[in-house]
Amino acid sequence: MSLNSTNGQNFTTIKEEAELDFGFNREEMSFRFGQHLIKPSVVFLKTELSFALVNRKPVVPGHVLVCPLRPVERFRDLRPDEVADLFQATQRVGMVVEKHFQGTSLTFSIQDGPEAGQTVKLQKHDKEEEDSPTLWRSEEEMASEAAALRVYFQ
Amino acid sequence: MSLNSTNGQNFTTIKEEAELDFGFNREEMSFRFGQHLIKPSVVFLKTELSFALVNRKPVVPGHVLVCPLRPVERFRDLRPDEVADLFQATQRVGMVVEKHFQGTSLTFSIQDGPEAGQTVKLQKHDKEEEDSPTLWRSEEEMASEAAALRVYFQ
Repeated sequence: MSLNSTNGQNFTTIKEEAELDFGFNREEMSFRFGQHLIKPSVVFLKTELSFALVNRKPVVPGHVLVCPLRPVERFRDLRPDEVADLFQATQRVGMVVEKHFQGTSLTFSIQDGPEAGQTVKLQKHDKEEEDSPTLWRSEEEMASEAAALRVYFQ
Repeated sequence: MSLNSTNGQNFTTIKEEAELDFGFNREEMSFRFGQHLIKPSVVFLKTELSFALVNRKPVVPGHVLVCPLRPVERFRDLRPDEVADLFQATQRVGMVVEKHFQGTSLTFSIQDGPEAGQTVKLQKHDKEEEDSPTLWRSEEEMASEAAALRVYFQ
């Protein structure tokens, strides 16, 4: 679930990485987004079955991701309790993002499958190489934003 | 929740009416989408707290709406049980739409608030007049599509 806050001056339709194949690696205490391992420093919410993180390439301020802890290929593969937890978490995240980024509206979006623009996969993918790290925000910048958002959930 | 099936030949990002202020009028046995009363003939799924209907102006084939029965202004106003039911219903609808329209992927989207493109309101809205009925599909065409989709849930 990709979401972003919008207001009259700053409205962009968000189409971002699919978030359905995230996962949480309990042994290493790190989170998984398809083929990517996610540093806990960029995660700002963890619920029973979901987590939320800041984006390394936000299209607009407040563009974040909410994901199930268990990696799945498609939305249909989530269990009912995972669906409930994911969208209840998304509701909470939406309220915080709208407040923190002083938006007045939100756009939520899921790209479910490759033809819907999903590029993140359970397995490593050729397209990954097109996603150059030089386009990403710094780890410090991301950790700082995550820390600011984390406060709202404490 | 607006969703549509996509495939390599037919991919369009859907940005459609917000669906958060739908409602079900038990007295009249009709459904409500903001200021609009929805005919049961175009509804193809009703769950405990949600319903799904075909679109009068589908942007691509398989562009349908899934909505809470209780009208609310914003996504944040839904109760946890309504959120769970809405997205579990959306998951079922997605599977059916992808199958029926022979898609390979799905796009789900919520426009939550006016600055995210939401035009449907709890109250009558000036913009409504811009939405000319001459652009709509016929009631017969919509009822026929709803009937075809309803079969999958029986």
